[in-house]
Amino acid sequence: MKLGRISVQGPDGPEARLVLALPDEGRAIDLAAAERLRLERRGAAPEAARRLARALFPGSMAAAIALGDQFLEAAERAADADRGDASLPLEGLRWLPAIDPPVMRDCLAFEEHMVNSSARLGRSVPPVFYQLPIYYKGNPHSLIGHEWEVPWPGYTQAMDYELELGFVVGRSGRDLTPEEARGCLFGVTIFNDFSARDIQGQEMGGGLGPAKGKDFATAVGPWIVTVDELDVMSLEMAARVNGEEWSRGSSGTIMWRPEEILAYISWGEELHPGDLIGSGTVGRGCGLELGRFLSPGDVVELEVSGIGVLRNRLGQPQPVRWRPSPRQPSA
Amino acid sequence: MKLGRISVQGPDGPEARLVLALPDEGRAIDLAAAERLRLERRGAAPEAARRLARALFPGSMAAAIALGDQFLEAAERAADADRGDASLPLEGLRWLPAIDPPVMRDCLAFEEHMVNSSARLGRSVPPVFYQLPIYYKGNPHSLIGHEWEVPWPGYTQAMDYELELGFVVGRSGRDLTPEEARGCLFGVTIFNDFSARDIQGQEMGGGLGPAKGKDFATAVGPWIVTVDELDVMSLEMAARVNGEEWSRGSSGTIMWRPEEILAYISWGEELHPGDLIGSGTVGRGCGLELGRFLSPGDVVELEVSGIGVLRNRLGQPQPVRWRPSPRQPSA
Repeated sequence: MKLGRISVQGPDGPEARLVLALPDEGRAIDLAAAERLRLERRGAAPEAARRLARALFPGSMAAAIALGDQFLEAAERAADADRGDASLPLEGLRWLPAIDPPVMRDCLAFEEHMVNSSARLGRSVPPVFYQLPIYYKGNPHSLIGHEWEVPWPGYTQAMDYELELGFVVGRSGRDLTPEEARGCLFGVTIFNDFSARDIQGQEMGGGLGPAKGKDFATAVGPWIVTVDELDVMSLEMAARVNGEEWSRGSSGTIMWRPEEILAYISWGEELHPGDLIGSGTVGRGCGLELGRFLSPGDVVELEVSGIGVLRNRLGQPQPVRWRPSPRQPSA
Repeated sequence: MKLGRISVQGPDGPEARLVLALPDEGRAIDLAAAERLRLERRGAAPEAARRLARALFPGSMAAAIALGDQFLEAAERAADADRGDASLPLEGLRWLPAIDPPVMRDCLAFEEHMVNSSARLGRSVPPVFYQLPIYYKGNPHSLIGHEWEVPWPGYTQAMDYELELGFVVGRSGRDLTPEEARGCLFGVTIFNDFSARDIQGQEMGGGLGPAKGKDFATAVGPWIVTVDELDVMSLEMAARVNGEEWSRGSSGTIMWRPEEILAYISWGEELHPGDLIGSGTVGRGCGLELGRFLSPGDVVELEVSGIGVLRNRLGQPQPVRWRPSPRQPSA
């Protein structure tokens, strides 16, 4: 199944809705609407049908995933029962980030990206890269959806994209082995970790983060494809800028397998349903590796086989209203 | 006001409740209960009073803070009206983390800590420390409350505490100046950033994180003190291990002022009501600086003047069920 989130106008303002995307038919099914109509046909009063349908299909994808197997079972039932009343044309939908994760992490799991980036920065690959599937935590409140404009913070002159997969966690777990963790993967989405390379390099010199280098925008979408529909280890990945192909790679080149990454994350802490984990950039999957950067107005498309295309246009640089004034070491 | 969160048993399991702590009286007022009783006395039907009281005082502190001035006004009104019916003895309460933040960050804002820690690790202080109030993002789902046992992940043999302030954000904001950001600070709590120094050092060698070095547990509490009750720049801070004082410092030695930190965080991204920001460790505020580490069973108390004492006991090391197997560089 391809599951996404859209925004529609409600009486109290914009409202998030879960949809089942059917790109081959150019349609998407509003799952809460389909379930509400199904329940009504089976004799539920309209208000009761709405209440139960919204409990099964809330606006939050993470909350829906947290229902466990019931979520996918209910989605299948609702979609099968739909007689077209809950179906929307794909064209013109306002896509939200496909997932609203409790915690968002981003790894560094492709060796070629690490080797290329380190070479560009005149550094050697840090040994820990071969010892642990290291990651940082992103800002889940800076996620943007398919077709959203990317805000360009005025503090950067080195805007880049990153071609990644986004792994979505399906269930809780702690201190898992990779075998156990395999069952925790719910689905895969496309993940564009937009990066401000100048400030990223500056802040990573302190061993922390990155933060400002990443937290202004991360695109995910257009939807999540459930794992039963994909061979996660053989996905073709490509990036185009203004229609020109800049990057091409394959998920099969990943050095830490998804289940090893999930098992590592579950070390001493809890995986949550809906957690989002970037795979790290595939080899040659960003401008830094190619010596090229983005400009305002550029359109970046990431395509992954079996998933689709995630498209975003870069906005104009925003004014900087204040800068921290440097301090002098006291000794 | 001193505002905290407790857990009480409800018909569907444990339930979070917001309380106004009155440590001098040895009492805490359950705010939703006080408001429900106040509304009933003014003629509201019990179910309607309960509904409105829980909307004003949900279990989430972040959700309550997001109500803006209405939250503190309602808390004052409910507490003033309370005739003791909603008052609980402080003794024996089960404290939850004082805040459930949308995003959790931790800074490095005290120079002495940075100088001492760098010296212990045989490194120089990175220049970015004097250029930007750098930070990493923590795991808001790994927060623990006052008197909770600290889980000890089996992967570390170098357990440490960190004596910090926790700044709680009161309102949204983006691209703020420090003057504007000053009004966004809701209150201050005590923040113990428990740290696994061995794996922290290993992962920071990759320039990312820290993650496993921190994400197993961060203690916050026992409550938040609103900014009107504190001079944030002159708080005395102390840490005791098994009753012996290990650390003492003052908030006045901070190099980046709280409003500069908030303004920096708001660069190109949104501050959210309830966001939690660790100040970074005060000088000599952790074992790393002193060449000492913690042992299983140790009791760590952090005390901050005007706030109170945050106490946690270290648990026993947990078994390690799996470790990542190192990779060989391909070239």
